[in-house]
Amino acid sequence: MTKTVTQSSAPHFADRLISRIRELGHPLCLGLDPHLAQIPALFRRGDMGAGSAQTPQAVEDFLFAILERAEGRAAIVKPQIAFFEQMGWRGIEVLTKVVERARALGFLTLLDAKRGDIGSTADGYAKAYLEPGSPVEVDAITLNPYLGLDSLDPFAARAEAHGRGLFVLVKTSNPGSGDLQDLGLAESDSQTKVFVAVASALAPLSRQLVGKQTGWSSLGVVVGATYPADAAIVRERLPEALFLVPGYGAQGGSAAEAVRGFVRGPSGLEGGLVNSSRGILFPEAGDTAEASAWERAVDAALDRAIGELGEAVAGSSD
Amino acid sequence: MTKTVTQSSAPHFADRLISRIRELGHPLCLGLDPHLAQIPALFRRGDMGAGSAQTPQAVEDFLFAILERAEGRAAIVKPQIAFFEQMGWRGIEVLTKVVERARALGFLTLLDAKRGDIGSTADGYAKAYLEPGSPVEVDAITLNPYLGLDSLDPFAARAEAHGRGLFVLVKTSNPGSGDLQDLGLAESDSQTKVFVAVASALAPLSRQLVGKQTGWSSLGVVVGATYPADAAIVRERLPEALFLVPGYGAQGGSAAEAVRGFVRGPSGLEGGLVNSSRGILFPEAGDTAEASAWERAVDAALDRAIGELGEAVAGSSD
Repeated sequence: MTKTVTQSSAPHFADRLISRIRELGHPLCLGLDPHLAQIPALFRRGDMGAGSAQTPQAVEDFLFAILERAEGRAAIVKPQIAFFEQMGWRGIEVLTKVVERARALGFLTLLDAKRGDIGSTADGYAKAYLEPGSPVEVDAITLNPYLGLDSLDPFAARAEAHGRGLFVLVKTSNPGSGDLQDLGLAESDSQTKVFVAVASALAPLSRQLVGKQTGWSSLGVVVGATYPADAAIVRERLPEALFLVPGYGAQGGSAAEAVRGFVRGPSGLEGGLVNSSRGILFPEAGDTAEASAWERAVDAALDRAIGELGEAVAGSSD
Repeated sequence: MTKTVTQSSAPHFADRLISRIRELGHPLCLGLDPHLAQIPALFRRGDMGAGSAQTPQAVEDFLFAILERAEGRAAIVKPQIAFFEQMGWRGIEVLTKVVERARALGFLTLLDAKRGDIGSTADGYAKAYLEPGSPVEVDAITLNPYLGLDSLDPFAARAEAHGRGLFVLVKTSNPGSGDLQDLGLAESDSQTKVFVAVASALAPLSRQLVGKQTGWSSLGVVVGATYPADAAIVRERLPEALFLVPGYGAQGGSAAEAVRGFVRGPSGLEGGLVNSSRGILFPEAGDTAEASAWERAVDAALDRAIGELGEAVAGSSD
């Protein structure tokens, strides 16, 4: 742990998140992935090239409008930083404003950055995103575990001191995820794969970051909905870890598959977030220059995702 | 491969880099890691907090002065993006200027970003850094392999089309690097570890990206100097891959250990880059407000690193 960060009484991330999810009745995480080529006509400016002067403003307008549609309807939003980085420093300026706006509207914020580095460099990333007053201050961040457990220390210190959340990549949703994550290990249990070993290695930190109110940990994991059987294996190893599940909707998994690693809570299945971005940001009927048609299309996409996920967590199976 | 990127006759990254290294006689990569607390008195402004208004200008002044000291003396510089990200969008603006300045002075540029993501997100990162006209346009980037080989595709497409280089994390220099990278695999060869499997999996792409002029590949790997025996294992699997070796100098490895994975070339041992940042940016005698004393201190640190590394690659061992 980084010694310069002291304990504080900051509200616990997982407690805040799960309380809000219980209120809303669904685990939707709204992914903010502004694919420039798909920004609807209503918001487009100029050629929408990543380097064009008007593009950052178009992205800002679009995402502010999305946040307005979703206000009060989702617990958390997840901006994907790559789509901002491709616009250079002006893109990071837009990200800063979008995150500030989301927090002002009452959303929790999760930055999908998949950072992973060591020592003072990891500390730099933690300072960039997980401290009170960070230039892009978010509630939680995604992390890559390839460099080892010590690479997580600076982030874990901020999770404890400032009530932040971490989601470590364990089993991702892409076709190539098995190249490394599914390699079989030479352990007594011949079924053990790399991703299972990563999950097991995270168990002590997961227990350390458990919240008093809900029993869930601020150390979460990324587990793709495209491999639901693997979710059950990870859940065994990490009973208190929140799952961030990408791969629902546009990426192919069903709502029922997405919540496969969830467990029975006081008001239905709980224990994670299910991300949807393209399905909500870019519904087919939303590619219009007409404001009310765009609003109806996004509202309908939100209704559908919330309905499907609400049903999945209310379902009788556990 | 991303289909929208077409082949071009852009000069090959590894050919450019190795040609320059042969001219200079040493493989020094100058790491640009602006630890804010260590910026010398000569350049400090205000309290040097990451969020302070004057800090980005101080970092810019400092790194421009460093580039001026190193002009014509090193083939490549490696900015670590975390130290810029911690200053928010203003930090990325400084990074943009530092990279432009480095290219104008004739340095090749390698962005230490350790990015790793999938599909359109990985494509966003590739657009941000590896295309002609990218907002922060560099010659090469470091990547994280945890998500699998498909996560490398968008970067490999730019390497081929635009003459860029990739350095994939294989065996890092930190104490925790073994947590995941050294896990033993259940293969016929009981000595095989995760990092060795990663190296083997990269072999086809490494061969695909070999340059005609020098025989070296634009697909490189990160192999820490703190584990020189592992460098030899990786070299067996990847005979054409350039090694990016961190962990020389301040991080503890000797020059001789750092070049352990190099092979005999026309003018000494070659096949990689040895990074030094803190040892050159922050020599003890450089913490001064006096310009000529600072210049002497940095020049002396450069002389020493160049001398040690030049000797190590000229040595008789192979």
